[in-house]
Amino acid sequence: MENCGQGCQDYTSRPKNTNIRLSLPVVCFVWQIAMIILFGVFIRYDEESDAHWVETKAHDNITSDIENDFYFRYPSFQDVHVMIFVGFGFLMTFLKRYSFGGVGFNFLIASFGLQWALLMQGWFHSLDPQTGKIYIGIESLINADFCVAGCLIAYGAVLGKVSPVQLLVMTLFGVTLFAVEEYIILNLLHARDAGGSMVIHTFGGYYGLAISWVLYRPNLHQSKRMQGSVYHSDTFAMIGTLFLWMFWPSFNSAITDHGDGQHRAVINTYLGLASTVLTTVAISSLSQKNGKLDMVHIQNSTLAGGVALGTAAEFMVSPYGALIVGFFCGIISTMGYLFISPFLEKTLKIQDTCGIHNLHAMPGVIGGIVGAITAAAASESVYGKQGLINTFDFTGDFKNRTVLTQGGYQAAGMCVSIVFGIGGGAIVGSILKLPIWGDPADENCFDDEMYWELPDEDEEHQESIPPILEYNNHIIHKQQDLAESNFSVENCES
Amino acid sequence: MENCGQGCQDYTSRPKNTNIRLSLPVVCFVWQIAMIILFGVFIRYDEESDAHWVETKAHDNITSDIENDFYFRYPSFQDVHVMIFVGFGFLMTFLKRYSFGGVGFNFLIASFGLQWALLMQGWFHSLDPQTGKIYIGIESLINADFCVAGCLIAYGAVLGKVSPVQLLVMTLFGVTLFAVEEYIILNLLHARDAGGSMVIHTFGGYYGLAISWVLYRPNLHQSKRMQGSVYHSDTFAMIGTLFLWMFWPSFNSAITDHGDGQHRAVINTYLGLASTVLTTVAISSLSQKNGKLDMVHIQNSTLAGGVALGTAAEFMVSPYGALIVGFFCGIISTMGYLFISPFLEKTLKIQDTCGIHNLHAMPGVIGGIVGAITAAAASESVYGKQGLINTFDFTGDFKNRTVLTQGGYQAAGMCVSIVFGIGGGAIVGSILKLPIWGDPADENCFDDEMYWELPDEDEEHQESIPPILEYNNHIIHKQQDLAESNFSVENCES
Amino acid sequence: MENCGQGCQDYTSRPKNTNIRLSLPVVCFVWQIAMIILFGVFIRYDEESDAHWVETKAHDNITSDIENDFYFRYPSFQDVHVMIFVGFGFLMTFLKRYSFGGVGFNFLIASFGLQWALLMQGWFHSLDPQTGKIYIGIESLINADFCVAGCLIAYGAVLGKVSPVQLLVMTLFGVTLFAVEEYIILNLLHARDAGGSMVIHTFGGYYGLAISWVLYRPNLHQSKRMQGSVYHSDTFAMIGTLFLWMFWPSFNSAITDHGDGQHRAVINTYLGLASTVLTTVAISSLSQKNGKLDMVHIQNSTLAGGVALGTAAEFMVSPYGALIVGFFCGIISTMGYLFISPFLEKTLKIQDTCGIHNLHAMPGVIGGIVGAITAAAASESVYGKQGLINTFDFTGDFKNRTVLTQGGYQAAGMCVSIVFGIGGGAIVGSILKLPIWGDPADENCFDDEMYWELPDEDEEHQESIPPILEYNNHIIHKQQDLAESNFSVENCES
Repeated sequence: MENCGQGCQDYTSRPKNTNIRLSLPVVCFVWQIAMIILFGVFIRYDEESDAHWVETKAHDNITSDIENDFYFRYPSFQDVHVMIFVGFGFLMTFLKRYSFGGVGFNFLIASFGLQWALLMQGWFHSLDPQTGKIYIGIESLINADFCVAGCLIAYGAVLGKVSPVQLLVMTLFGVTLFAVEEYIILNLLHARDAGGSMVIHTFGGYYGLAISWVLYRPNLHQSKRMQGSVYHSDTFAMIGTLFLWMFWPSFNSAITDHGDGQHRAVINTYLGLASTVLTTVAISSLSQKNGKLDMVHIQNSTLAGGVALGTAAEFMVSPYGALIVGFFCGIISTMGYLFISPFLEKTLKIQDTCGIHNLHAMPGVIGGIVGAITAAAASESVYGKQGLINTFDFTGDFKNRTVLTQGGYQAAGMCVSIVFGIGGGAIVGSILKLPIWGDPADENCFDDEMYWELPDEDEEHQESIPPILEYNNHIIHKQQDLAESNFSVENCES
Repeated sequence: MENCGQGCQDYTSRPKNTNIRLSLPVVCFVWQIAMIILFGVFIRYDEESDAHWVETKAHDNITSDIENDFYFRYPSFQDVHVMIFVGFGFLMTFLKRYSFGGVGFNFLIASFGLQWALLMQGWFHSLDPQTGKIYIGIESLINADFCVAGCLIAYGAVLGKVSPVQLLVMTLFGVTLFAVEEYIILNLLHARDAGGSMVIHTFGGYYGLAISWVLYRPNLHQSKRMQGSVYHSDTFAMIGTLFLWMFWPSFNSAITDHGDGQHRAVINTYLGLASTVLTTVAISSLSQKNGKLDMVHIQNSTLAGGVALGTAAEFMVSPYGALIVGFFCGIISTMGYLFISPFLEKTLKIQDTCGIHNLHAMPGVIGGIVGAITAAAASESVYGKQGLINTFDFTGDFKNRTVLTQGGYQAAGMCVSIVFGIGGGAIVGSILKLPIWGDPADENCFDDEMYWELPDEDEEHQESIPPILEYNNHIIHKQQDLAESNFSVENCES
Repeated sequence: MENCGQGCQDYTSRPKNTNIRLSLPVVCFVWQIAMIILFGVFIRYDEESDAHWVETKAHDNITSDIENDFYFRYPSFQDVHVMIFVGFGFLMTFLKRYSFGGVGFNFLIASFGLQWALLMQGWFHSLDPQTGKIYIGIESLINADFCVAGCLIAYGAVLGKVSPVQLLVMTLFGVTLFAVEEYIILNLLHARDAGGSMVIHTFGGYYGLAISWVLYRPNLHQSKRMQGSVYHSDTFAMIGTLFLWMFWPSFNSAITDHGDGQHRAVINTYLGLASTVLTTVAISSLSQKNGKLDMVHIQNSTLAGGVALGTAAEFMVSPYGALIVGFFCGIISTMGYLFISPFLEKTLKIQDTCGIHNLHAMPGVIGGIVGAITAAAASESVYGKQGLINTFDFTGDFKNRTVLTQGGYQAAGMCVSIVFGIGGGAIVGSILKLPIWGDPADENCFDDEMYWELPDEDEEHQESIPPILEYNNHIIHKQQDLAESNFSVENCES
């Protein structure tokens, strides 16, 4: 169905051009070929995924194939993979006419991003100085998915307002910035952040918000009719919400220590998220007439507890500690949707389509603070001597670090992620403002029509609403009868 | 869209008040705070999720982190988790206008229920008498999810007819009753029920049916227009069906013995469910004109085989035995939808929205019987000496129990679950009848409008049906032409 | 809603009879009973799922339950299971009015097929000559799911044009043919094909295409109105696409060697699929006006890289090699939808509803070729001495086989799969042409109305479109006003 009329005339009279028939294929082809070349030069299988493994495992005190890292991490990896593609993808299908863009562009940029992340993270974290190669295994794949998550969070802020080419550019720079801030936070500062409260959520959140701030559209109200949801698009979005919610324990435990580390991270995240659901429902109900619930809150704020436990999930926060974190995050995140998002839009001119400030940025900062406090409060009596060393990796250069110092570095790490998010987003936003990326006009935002061949719904409607058409026919006939009766009256008269 | 007119007037003239703006937030906040306090007092990490693990594992003959119970159970746990939230949740989206309530309230009560279950099950099963603490690990999380499943089954019977506050009350008591009957069945009677045919499905089924019986609504036909499905809501429900069906092998094997126990439970459940699909299709086709299939049967009865293997899946029922159980369950469950559900509603005044009698109660009872028979028929020649001891846990106080005695206790266990279900449901139903819980009037049942802010679909329809509007305009113009032609005729005449 | 009028009259005047009230139940019952009897005679638990395991494991150098094959394969198995039922099922919901048939018949035939596959594959691959029994474990279940996948692929070609009885017959023969060709390729030729590029995708693709060719319907355009998608059916199909895409690494690694074999297969498939997404998007965008994307390509062609790595994923193709395979598959598969499918339909009279030629047949052949080349190019320097033996299983009778010979046998294997697919499909297609299976008339294809009790949407539409009805009423009133004004004019006149 052509989306024409007044809107179309307005659109054609503006300098916006959403034709991406040249730019999108070129970017996809060139970047993918670059990936192939760079992978050829740099990326190799690591020891545990190389066929040589059989001969080398004896050296590693490995007695059985089951101790291959693959079996410790693969179930978590697959859960994370589902979160990236189905979780983030379907969470963004809530708009009435942007479901294709939500799930489809998510698919595209994640697929590019994970390749680029393997390279960027490899160069910064695991480049072998002797061979000049990056050796990848299952943990690398998880980290690549994590890195992509940061960019998908940012996508949430600009959902419906940018072209797929802009999204790819945003992902290219996002992954690059991510790898650098991650290197600073995890390697230089030696902060712990297994579930990425700081590295993923705080960075991704502020990165997206800063981009959205630069790309501010004062006339966005022109596409107001497209900004809502419909009944079934909200149901689709619940698929995303639930897969994110259910698999968040895997997210926060995917790269923590084998054994008790992964075990504990799962318990904490499971509990924190459960607690968040109840307080989200409470605040949502309080805020509406008759105590009705708002799907926006249920779809998003219920996840805040998982974000906020991203740093501390592997620590000994104890089960009730996890519940407390979840408790407050549900409240704060829902309050954010009610009060902070409108404020951001009106006062700070930040248009945040999915409310990532409430779901990722704020809970991420809370997570960083919780991490810093719980790290500073760690003790040998709670963790055990070896447990403390394992949990905070007090080995090598960091052998003599105290938990208090660790707490300080955790806090420093959080600042780094905010700075990289805001600074990086502002710069990348400026690049995205160039008039070459095929972004839509204000009145065409949130509309799949711009970038997708849509099915011809006319025919469907003809199929499914014969009663109406029949009714219309009925009207016509009735009218004709009336008209004829006029004639007859006239005839009688004449 | 306001759902007004005759229904609204009727509604306002009745004493029903669905305003839950006070009750829902209060219940959520108070209960969640209570959870935090109780968790603080009672719940701690168990040895395998505590950072001390490294120092203690040497005492447990554990040689590697991979032998942490986490790696035996985590993949199954995540599958069970998906069943609870996506499986049960989406299965209940089939109603045309209760998808938000189906998946959303499921989300809410499961999130509360699992916390309360950790406490209740902990007090009954694993309270350390010395420290007064409950130590939780991955198996506790699975058991909490199982416990919640019982309450979600009960939700199926009252779907669309109760308020979220009532559901939370139902879950509070349901989990409490569950923990007690589970303690009697598994600990005192020492019955085996790894997949919960008795403990979960029979109890949950009768609990829900008894509540629905107490809450009987003689005028429920007033909301008849809302009781059906639409094409896409049925498709959403298939997401629930399939995730339940696919992951049922994980459900029945999640807490069985390591090694062959889990392995066998998976094989049996996989086969039983496959068999059920064929007989469900057969009966469904037989029952309809031209052999057409009914989505209600496909969505529900195909799962009956998994329910009925909840007890016996870990036994040596042999592959063809599993097929036979599935075979009859498909027939009985589909017959239930065709004949027993209408009978229950008309004669016994039990209104069972999702037909949980056919999907959980009856197959659960069958499962209990199959379990008792196969336990009584177990022999050392089939199980091996050690296998028999492992499978039925003939250790400690039960060292000298014979398989025949075991069969008797299995049967006794089933009776306990029925008694707890019916008795508990009758009492809880009476509590839910109090006029303070915000339940909907008869004519407003099955309508998300009562408890959810719904998206404004008018606008969407304006968007998506221009052809009709144009057609209407066309009619108007045509009529005007007709009218004008009358004028002209008249003009000619005059 | 009755789908009547001209179509109905036409339908009743033709010899087609879609009444399957006798045939479907009979086939389901008889075949399921046959399964029970054959399972009773032949199928037993294998050592690792039998309760005797405890007593025998000492003999197998197994030191812990965690080395039960179950823990190596169960996570992958569950992912494959999701691909079969949700992946294939929802991928086929894209048609506007065939979602029930897409996901429902997929459910039915997969449930039958996996039972028959356990028998057929058991007889050919693992019948114990001494006891005459087939011993099954987790790997058997994976192989049964794989075998079913071949038939579900074939279903894609005839989607919407056959009856469920025809589908069951197609599955019966499909599984049988599959087991034979698999035996020839894997056991006699000793080709490697862990992810089934040849055995599953090439065979399944050509099997379906040959059947569709025999069942050619020259007047299929009569149901043209039903052949498209609608907005939400396309969104449902993305659920299928994404679960297939995400879990494909599990598919290709599910039965590869423990340890590095599974690990490497996951990495290769993960990378290949990522690469495919970018080139699919590029070609799709190039092919449309304004660079818009086509959902058909995104739903299907993005998966081609996984198909093409089915053989080589476990080999040392190296990460960039996987990217290259994915790169070309995305291009070729999307080109297939644009150019080859129309050609097949017009010139070769092959109607391929889902385009399985582009998603399975062609990429499967590419996968076979890639496998043959990479096998022939394998070397001890890359694989290590033991790695080469493990990867290609150069043991027993094949101890002295060289990699070059292996490459030749790989190529031979691919030819076998094509021959079995085309030959078998032609024969089975002829059987399916018999006028006894209840297939729909040309004008009733792609319509769930034929085989499903559909929800009564009229009521829903009445519910959801009052604005229109009100508008119609408005029109009537306006017209009456006009008419009355005519009267009044006349009255004035007279």
